[in-house]
Amino acid sequence: MRGLHIFADFYHCPKGKYMVSAKALRQLCIRASEGAGLTVLGDHFYQFNGFDATQAGGATGALVLAESHLAVHTWPERDGATLDIYVCNVTGDNSDKAEALYAELVRVIRPGDIMVERVWRGKDVPVADEAPTIALP
Amino acid sequence: MRGLHIFADFYHCPKGKYMVSAKALRQLCIRASEGAGLTVLGDHFYQFNGFDATQAGGATGALVLAESHLAVHTWPERDGATLDIYVCNVTGDNSDKAEALYAELVRVIRPGDIMVERVWRGKDVPVADEAPTIALP
Repeated sequence: MRGLHIFADFYHCPKGKYMVSAKALRQLCIRASEGAGLTVLGDHFYQFNGFDATQAGGATGALVLAESHLAVHTWPERDGATLDIYVCNVTGDNSDKAEALYAELVRVIRPGDIMVERVWRGKDVPVADEAPTIALP
Repeated sequence: MRGLHIFADFYHCPKGKYMVSAKALRQLCIRASEGAGLTVLGDHFYQFNGFDATQAGGATGALVLAESHLAVHTWPERDGATLDIYVCNVTGDNSDKAEALYAELVRVIRPGDIMVERVWRGKDVPVADEAPTIALP
């Protein structure tokens, strides 16, 4: 369960396909994750409708990774996006892969302003010897 | 973009279907999200194989919500799980719904120990008047 969670809020992003197209955002996320050496197990992305004829809708989605997940949401009306990358370390330290994925998304989306925090999740709690058991149906 | 992000690490969870069945975990997440008044747009869940014949594999997945996302990963070999709930406030303050979802997942999964943090995301950056434009292909 131990692993790095990068959560970032992007501001003043250039307008463009990654802010308004779920298809383009999905392709970027998959390409960037695989490029960083992470394993994509599946995903779901959704295209929001625009508020009116002059304003495109945002894009939102999540990739389920073998190492945990990537979630991205865009707000084109605010030139903003939020980003979550969480990688657990079951198969080794995946922090470098998370940072590579983050760097690639910053490089492509090109936010003018970023608020980012890194949290190290999963303290070292010993495995319980006798966890209660719930019967499977 | 402003909204509450609850991230929690669950320890000493009782063994049972929510720790080892992606199908059961998915159903729980959808039911609990809808019960909290959140709107599920789609999801992807994945069932990990066990390490050997005596140890079931974990479950992992994400729900894409109209309000942002829910992501859950389980580690049955450690009786642990991680949980992320992020709700933006475009349509109003969804914090109570996020807390209701969190409370329901705690009630059902019944972790013996929890490390939880709440982060208020999205500072009030004004909309840029002239964000650079990238041409759509």
